[in-house]
This record gives sequence, structure tokens and C-alpha cells, in this order.
Amino acid sequence: MNKYAVIVAGGSGTRMGAPMPKQYLPIGGMPVLMHTLRKFVRAVFNIKLILVIPANDFELWTELCEQHQFQIPHQVVAGGKSRFQSVKNGLNMIPDHEGLVAIHDGVRPFVEAEVIQSSYEVAAKSGSAIAVVALKDSIRKLQDDGKSVFQERQYFRLVQTPQTFQVSKIKKAFEVPELHTFTDDATVYEHQGWQVELIAGNLENIKITTPEDLEYAEFLLRK
Amino acid sequence: MNKYAVIVAGGSGTRMGAPMPKQYLPIGGMPVLMHTLRKFVRAVFNIKLILVIPANDFELWTELCEQHQFQIPHQVVAGGKSRFQSVKNGLNMIPDHEGLVAIHDGVRPFVEAEVIQSSYEVAAKSGSAIAVVALKDSIRKLQDDGKSVFQERQYFRLVQTPQTFQVSKIKKAFEVPELHTFTDDATVYEHQGWQVELIAGNLENIKITTPEDLEYAEFLLRK
Repeated sequence: MNKYAVIVAGGSGTRMGAPMPKQYLPIGGMPVLMHTLRKFVRAVFNIKLILVIPANDFELWTELCEQHQFQIPHQVVAGGKSRFQSVKNGLNMIPDHEGLVAIHDGVRPFVEAEVIQSSYEVAAKSGSAIAVVALKDSIRKLQDDGKSVFQERQYFRLVQTPQTFQVSKIKKAFEVPELHTFTDDATVYEHQGWQVELIAGNLENIKITTPEDLEYAEFLLRK
Repeated sequence: MNKYAVIVAGGSGTRMGAPMPKQYLPIGGMPVLMHTLRKFVRAVFNIKLILVIPANDFELWTELCEQHQFQIPHQVVAGGKSRFQSVKNGLNMIPDHEGLVAIHDGVRPFVEAEVIQSSYEVAAKSGSAIAVVALKDSIRKLQDDGKSVFQERQYFRLVQTPQTFQVSKIKKAFEVPELHTFTDDATVYEHQGWQVELIAGNLENIKITTPEDLEYAEFLLRK
């Protein structure tokens, strides 16, 4: 069964305050996105990589690949106006309706190979596999009246990527009009009435969105 | 108004797999606990520090203070069998019923001075101030039937310390028998029917509980 990965980096990275979108910033001397792509290639034999970036960045990306002599084969696709659109553009590049696809944030380069592998295994059986981690801190829920209420933290999971699916099901799920409740691919999948399966992610699999994250990423790389 | 801080490090740190409880392990050459105590002394003028550690560790702590020429005045109190008991032992050392007390995890040395200061200011007005941070990832809730449901993450906050209170109120709150629902000091306070006030904590204010946390702490210190 063919294994695909749609690596989503459609964002313009305005949150970093950096001149260049965060997915292109270097950690350990190499752009974040290249670390992420390399993780998938090393984790899964014969994987097919689809990279979604803004169309405006195609030239920049080509230059970066030349500059870093980045040889890993991947298909580049233009992102859309939202994450939903970007993922959909990526999924549209998958020619077959069999197979499995991992959808993964381009700015999560610290996903472990085992998490990637297990996501494909579980999705093959149950249709989906969503990487999640337990909470290390207590959690409270805010109410509309301004009060907050303690929650039992063992009932909560923080959601990461990869979010891996059977190609046929996730393609069907993305055929609907976009809703504001679609915060990730799992919620798009669930909109079909299907239940997602959770798998254990790794804590280091952070989303690099702030300058502090980038510093932490440097630290993780040096380890 | 007198300002107290109860720094809680009653745990034996078995999670670290280290020969010494984690609060005594060095970061930047100095035990974690000393960093934490120093943060409070530097943040608040004339603060009174109460350190809660296991009675078995008194000798070790004295040796560490001599070895590191640690001069910050603080009162040492024996911990109890649970966090609740340890905090209660700490609170019992406060002679007056006016004043404010910040209760803080000994293994959170990266709390910012501004967070400490604002916790006292808010607690002075409203009775309590609980440091919390927003979630960076999406969140799902597990159900008893094994399914999981997407939650709107803007309604959730991760709970840290300091948790700062008016001395009279938190002392009264700790006069009840311990319940298993007391996961932190906020929940003890709320058991009286009082609502807690939330304040913005800082993301770096991590609880050092694993070897990876300790490495990250070294990195944060070097920054």
C-alpha cells in the first residue's frame, strides 16, 4: 500500500516577526522544513512526500534546496488561503484512492520515527491515527461567566501531527465546504461521522511558532 | 502587608531515576531549589521564604547551602506525606493572619519576576491569583466509551504556580481533611466555595520532573 505524507507549511509565519517565514529558518544550519522532510524519508521506506508551501515561496524554496544540496525527492504544491485549503491541495496530488497519507505540520521537525510508523500502522487498520500527548500540568476550563473550573487532566490530550488517514476516507472528508470548526484534519474527518483513533505522540514534537520555540529547537537538535 | 512564599519540594523525586531528589540537582552549577528561592528574593522586597523539604533531607540541604555559600535567608520546614500536607506544614509557619502567601513548586525555577509580583498584587485585591498559560496545541477530551471529542482550546488554561492567596483565606481552606480532588492549592481554596482568579504565567515556567526537563533547564539558563 502506498504511503504518502503531506507536509503543510502554507503559513506566512507572521508570528515570528522574522523576515522569512518560520518554516525556512535554520536550526542546526538547515531550514526547519528540511529536517521535517528528512524525518519522514528516514522513517518510512519508499514514502512519497508532498510539500505544501505558498506559491510565492517556490523560488525561495528552490534556492534553499540548491544552497543546502537537499536531495530528498518531494513534490511541491501551492498552499491555499487556509490550512484546510492547503491540505486539500496536497491531498489532490495523490493519484490513487488506496494507500495511506500522513498530514504533518512542516514546523514539527521533532516527530519521532516510531510515531510516524505507528501512525501508518494504526490508520491502515482503523482509518485514522492522531498523535496526541498527555498533559504535564493541571488544566482549568474558562466559563462564559468569567469563572474557571478545574478539570481532571487525565481525560485530556494535546493534539499534534502526524494525523494519518486512509487516502480514500480523508479525500472524501475534504470534499465538504470549509467550516470554522475545522481546526485540524481530525475534525474534518470527524465531520463525516467517523471516530478518530488516537496514538501516542512524542513530547518533543513541538510546533515551532515563536522565537523561543526556535531556540528550544536548537537545543533539541544539539542533544 | 507581609509577603510570604512557601516553596514546596516535599517530593522524593523518584521519577528522575537519579540518586538525589530532583530539587537538589544542579542547573548552571547550582541546585534547582536555590534558583527558585533566588527568583522570589529578587522579585519581592523583604519577602519571607519558607522552604518545605522532606525531614530526611535537612542535613543534605544544610550541606548544599554551605557548599554553594547560599546566603538567602529562609526557614526550612519538614514536608508531609502529600503535597497538601507539605503545603499545610509550610502555611503553619506563617505567624500572622494578614499578609499574602505565594505557594510555588520548588522545581519551577523559571518563573518570571513579573508573574510573582502580579500574583501578589492580584491576590491582595481578590483573594487569590493562579498563574496559568494558554494552550499551544489543540486539545481533545477522552470519554468513558473510549471515544475522544475535540475541545475549543481557547477555553482552556494550563495551571502552574505560583498560586498566591491572602494568608487568612488559604489557612482556613487548609483546615479541612484532605480530599483526593485537591490536585493543587487552587482546588483547596475553591473547596470553600470561593472562586479563584487567574493571572498570566510565563511559558518557560516549566516543572522540572524528567531528565529531559533538566537538560532543557540547563539550556534556558545558558540563554
